[in-house]
Amino acid sequence: MTKSQLFEQIKKKKSFLCVGLDTDIQKIPEFLLDTSDPQFYFNQRIIDATAPYTVAYKPNLAFYESNGLEGWNSLEKTVQYLREKYPDIFLIADAKRGDIGNTSAMYARTFFETFNFDAVTIAPYMGEDSVKPFLGYDGKWVILLALTSNKGAFDFQFMTDTQGEKLFEKVLRTSQKWAGAENMMYVVGATKAEELQGIRQIVPDHFLLVPGVGAQGGSLSEVANFGMNNQCGLLVNSSRAILYASTGADFAEKAGEAAKETQIEMKNLLKEKKII
Amino acid sequence: MTKSQLFEQIKKKKSFLCVGLDTDIQKIPEFLLDTSDPQFYFNQRIIDATAPYTVAYKPNLAFYESNGLEGWNSLEKTVQYLREKYPDIFLIADAKRGDIGNTSAMYARTFFETFNFDAVTIAPYMGEDSVKPFLGYDGKWVILLALTSNKGAFDFQFMTDTQGEKLFEKVLRTSQKWAGAENMMYVVGATKAEELQGIRQIVPDHFLLVPGVGAQGGSLSEVANFGMNNQCGLLVNSSRAILYASTGADFAEKAGEAAKETQIEMKNLLKEKKII
Repeated sequence: MTKSQLFEQIKKKKSFLCVGLDTDIQKIPEFLLDTSDPQFYFNQRIIDATAPYTVAYKPNLAFYESNGLEGWNSLEKTVQYLREKYPDIFLIADAKRGDIGNTSAMYARTFFETFNFDAVTIAPYMGEDSVKPFLGYDGKWVILLALTSNKGAFDFQFMTDTQGEKLFEKVLRTSQKWAGAENMMYVVGATKAEELQGIRQIVPDHFLLVPGVGAQGGSLSEVANFGMNNQCGLLVNSSRAILYASTGADFAEKAGEAAKETQIEMKNLLKEKKII
Repeated sequence: MTKSQLFEQIKKKKSFLCVGLDTDIQKIPEFLLDTSDPQFYFNQRIIDATAPYTVAYKPNLAFYESNGLEGWNSLEKTVQYLREKYPDIFLIADAKRGDIGNTSAMYARTFFETFNFDAVTIAPYMGEDSVKPFLGYDGKWVILLALTSNKGAFDFQFMTDTQGEKLFEKVLRTSQKWAGAENMMYVVGATKAEELQGIRQIVPDHFLLVPGVGAQGGSLSEVANFGMNNQCGLLVNSSRAILYASTGADFAEKAGEAAKETQIEMKNLLKEKKII
């Protein structure tokens, strides 16, 4: 999917919501455990309920891998289901991969060929040749970790060099030499919203994937105020607050309501910023 | 496996060789492609040929994931085969994972429970809470990326703060607050052997997992000279130079010979350092 196609979807749906499919077999409604594929069945119901309000889905690989072969199968079915029923939705593999070149090339093959994701999240620690193999696919995206939403972000990402540049800023600046705003996005946590203004100065045109709204405590309006650009430039992720809005038989309905509520807030923010 | 058990294996086999199972379906001998599970069959033959000279195996997850369900299945069978036939060998999942706490907990479940690996490689960018969930398992290890063997290591890992500390040094120092030498190791590339002396001052007792000897051009004797401590403290990985020593029917035999050659060199280095 191209950047302008993604922006079209945002305007059409009046939403920049990404639903994180962090589908935890230990958290989904118990009655689903009797089905042949609980993770997939849960995802299918969640997707159907939330798709009208959502421009992107982001399965978190860990939650599938931890179920071994079965989980991998559930993920494959989820991606197929999304591709067939909702071909206009942007699909992100939240995998946080990154390795030496020949290995990253394998991961790229996994996510862009074996699966048919639009984007994959990548950790920047190993530098350019660990990221480059993901950039060789037309219409596919790298979403590079810059400033993450967790507490551990303070351990290394704020390290400051002798010129006063922080590590996450160096990641933003350096990686712009590898790719432009047409096939690179950045992860910036909503819990660090006060940094968004500075980040926008470094990457004015790039999309930012923003986790941390909801269960992690970030504020959507702050993110929009500091992070939105004139093509929206934001995908805000919500996982737990939507997936587990209810643990009863009405889980999908409640997830749909939670997504709709977020979408309405997003619509108002897009209007405020005169984007729609 | 504990640190002293690992050291016992090193002394017994007179080797600190780790064979990286980067099993590329596009590189293995063609005649194997007619079997029902080429990746597993290749691994099985390589393992049987190299096990006498090897203290650790390190399947690289990318090479299995890229084959989807089939690859995941081959990996599962490989780990089972190793566990049953060679229970004393240290098993490393080369996965380079690392995510927010609840996700890292899922990855820990994957590698330490769903599979039964001894260790997993982790990227440090997201800090303490991304690493901690892997440290809650007795006898299991985190192998944290410090200084990697690739060219991209120079993009961020050598970033220097106002006190003159480099990022990889900060990773080594900071992470010692999270775990000791009994359940943490570090990745240090053989191609950066000149840094090993300084690294040994920061982590004198830790095991280092050293990739980059062989195809990537690092020197084993340099690594031993600068990196060995009095309990060896090194696992040196070789992947391509062993796996693809021949692409003919004699691939396993040639892999065994390549492993043996490396083991003999390692035995001499262990003797020089008076460890055996």
